[in-house]
Amino acid sequence: MKPLKEMSKDELKDLLTKLENEYNEIKAKNLNLNMARGKPESLQLDLSMPLLDTINSQSNLNKAMDYRNYGILDGTDEAKVFMAELLETTVDHVVVYGNSSLNIMFDQISRGYTHGYLGNAPWCKLDKVKFLCPVPGYDRHFAITEHFDIEMIAIPLLEDGPDMDMVKEYVENDETVKGIWCVPQYANPTGTSYSKETVERFASLKPAAKDFRIFWDNAYIIHHLYDDNQDHVENILTACEKAGNPNMVFEFCSTAKVSFPGAGISALATSIDNKEDILKHMTVQTIGHDKINQMRHVEYFKNLDGLKMHMKKHADILRPKFESVLDIFEKELGGLEIGTWTQPKGGYFISFYALDGCAKDIVKACKEAGAILTNAGATYPYGKDPKDSNIRIAPSFPPMDELKQAAQLFTLCVKLVSVKKYLNV
Amino acid sequence: MKPLKEMSKDELKDLLTKLENEYNEIKAKNLNLNMARGKPESLQLDLSMPLLDTINSQSNLNKAMDYRNYGILDGTDEAKVFMAELLETTVDHVVVYGNSSLNIMFDQISRGYTHGYLGNAPWCKLDKVKFLCPVPGYDRHFAITEHFDIEMIAIPLLEDGPDMDMVKEYVENDETVKGIWCVPQYANPTGTSYSKETVERFASLKPAAKDFRIFWDNAYIIHHLYDDNQDHVENILTACEKAGNPNMVFEFCSTAKVSFPGAGISALATSIDNKEDILKHMTVQTIGHDKINQMRHVEYFKNLDGLKMHMKKHADILRPKFESVLDIFEKELGGLEIGTWTQPKGGYFISFYALDGCAKDIVKACKEAGAILTNAGATYPYGKDPKDSNIRIAPSFPPMDELKQAAQLFTLCVKLVSVKKYLNV
Repeated sequence: MKPLKEMSKDELKDLLTKLENEYNEIKAKNLNLNMARGKPESLQLDLSMPLLDTINSQSNLNKAMDYRNYGILDGTDEAKVFMAELLETTVDHVVVYGNSSLNIMFDQISRGYTHGYLGNAPWCKLDKVKFLCPVPGYDRHFAITEHFDIEMIAIPLLEDGPDMDMVKEYVENDETVKGIWCVPQYANPTGTSYSKETVERFASLKPAAKDFRIFWDNAYIIHHLYDDNQDHVENILTACEKAGNPNMVFEFCSTAKVSFPGAGISALATSIDNKEDILKHMTVQTIGHDKINQMRHVEYFKNLDGLKMHMKKHADILRPKFESVLDIFEKELGGLEIGTWTQPKGGYFISFYALDGCAKDIVKACKEAGAILTNAGATYPYGKDPKDSNIRIAPSFPPMDELKQAAQLFTLCVKLVSVKKYLNV
Repeated sequence: MKPLKEMSKDELKDLLTKLENEYNEIKAKNLNLNMARGKPESLQLDLSMPLLDTINSQSNLNKAMDYRNYGILDGTDEAKVFMAELLETTVDHVVVYGNSSLNIMFDQISRGYTHGYLGNAPWCKLDKVKFLCPVPGYDRHFAITEHFDIEMIAIPLLEDGPDMDMVKEYVENDETVKGIWCVPQYANPTGTSYSKETVERFASLKPAAKDFRIFWDNAYIIHHLYDDNQDHVENILTACEKAGNPNMVFEFCSTAKVSFPGAGISALATSIDNKEDILKHMTVQTIGHDKINQMRHVEYFKNLDGLKMHMKKHADILRPKFESVLDIFEKELGGLEIGTWTQPKGGYFISFYALDGCAKDIVKACKEAGAILTNAGATYPYGKDPKDSNIRIAPSFPPMDELKQAAQLFTLCVKLVSVKKYLNV
């Protein structure tokens, strides 16, 4: 087919009739499909079942101390070593937490709001606090800053990272800008990664606010789809240290999409001063996180090599899914010029850009025919995509046959809505 | 021996010489004893080791949903039923959390501070916020309110609960009073429990502040020392409902001192409106707590009967320790009129009241001879006991022989410091 914009009105009308027939046929099937959230599928969860055998009633849990008892704020020695290797840093920079890195991020924002960082004023005492939000981005990040009434400023996410000219302009001239949300590797939802230059430009920022922090959510740090064709983002902690900005970053990661999303372990890496500041707060907040689960993870994965081996098994399940979706997109939409999409080498998402003003209608049409997508707009602060163009595709959760049906239906809806747009109906 | 206050100066001097000799002999032994924290001892932790076998690689974790995956904010169905039975309420009132009830309490205070309860103003926007603190009380409670710059007002803890005339006076006339810390059963550190009348007086309060909340830390809800001689505190949720104050209480509990202090599960019980308010906040904060660990606990303990059976085994370890300490206190200090102490039927602590002005010196003398106690003053807001009298004794952690040595040393230090006080040296 030729690009839709080159079609005559009659050609478009014929196409619309054909697409509507197809759509109604599918609708009649009462499908129940879901490409909304970045959840691992059941087969992926099965991969980690042996982890549940590593600790049992015969295990010796009495290591540096009795890990069954109260104590240890920053994680077991073994878990710190394990997470430090993953984060390419040393144990003195690491705090190992419970099952949710989202919760660590929430806590850091909340701590900034209630107590401030390293002696700076708590944000709740300031008239205005702003965060930069590369877009499209992760809806749960934006939900946290919105919850704390922090003004969010959208920054375009380019192929090699956020628009750093714009970031620099804001960060260096506006002291109400206290942070930026980043997913540096296989970003949610684009699947793209930050370049070396982007990382270096981040590290050499000279923030107007002393308490400006980069929230570096390295959620997909080892979540590659390919053995040979992988992204690798420069170490932001080291880069910030070298640039004389050691305290400027909080880095987050977890095993949510490595072991179990509900029962993994998570970690924060930051400067030694920041860590000390965090522990002062944590010592009031908790008597420590689940050390037995930390131990379970270390016993099972051993080290970074063990993790990498395990992630290959995830990739073997995820890769065909990504490729199927991309194949269907190419086959159904290639050459029509009614959409572009990313081709990630890792992570959990594909980002689709429809013709301006079409995303909401596409998501709605999918829903009415039985396929749930992430809400259009969800990838922007306040849920508002100014162009109404971006749609996040999450291929991981549905089994392959359902995924293919959903992707097929999606492309149909893209065509349908685009034709209507051109016909102005 | 007769009461010290009836001794002549010469008698006291002779006694001092004798005590100092005994003290120096013990000091020379370079002991390393600890009666400071309410930690279970190793034998108690052994009791729950089979819990670690209940979930393994062959377990079916796919229940109401796949518990290995993201999701479920308020806990698994099974864990809610389990915790609801323990808390004598229904699942719609319960949220099951991760490993730390302290963290739930911190989160509730933090939420009051940043967002307010049920539409009331966030505390950070108010000029003044106060909390009532029954004393002696739990140092970690006081640490949370101090951390959020909340003014703490000490309320005497009487034998049947806090001085309710004083509580009523503050709560009903001062709208800056937003909460009160309570450990209703086997209180930390007195081991005493609130009477039925106290609970009813709490429930019928008419707070000046709409967002006044009772923080009901039911940490020792099933932590009895005896089969036949147990305290049982009235259900505060039901009492508040009946009195037309359904939203006035947050109740907390955990399995920290049932299974593993570092790896248990915890819960909050409150009104349906409060729960909804909490979940709105939690949905931004986390994707849910560790459902596999929740399942592990339910599979192992089954229900309240299972819990009670298990707690008897804890009691069998703890009871002789409490009784040994109390025997030594009676034998060494009985009749001297230089101290009183509580005789708990459950919980983790004994509370000792020395002669006014002696607590710090006693703790110091113990420390110098090799026995660590909870800091004098720790049981009061800001760490300041106005009478310098209360000392918290925690018999649980040391093995029996060390505990006896520590208790013996403690009584020696009480005598030594008291004699010096009478002699004014």
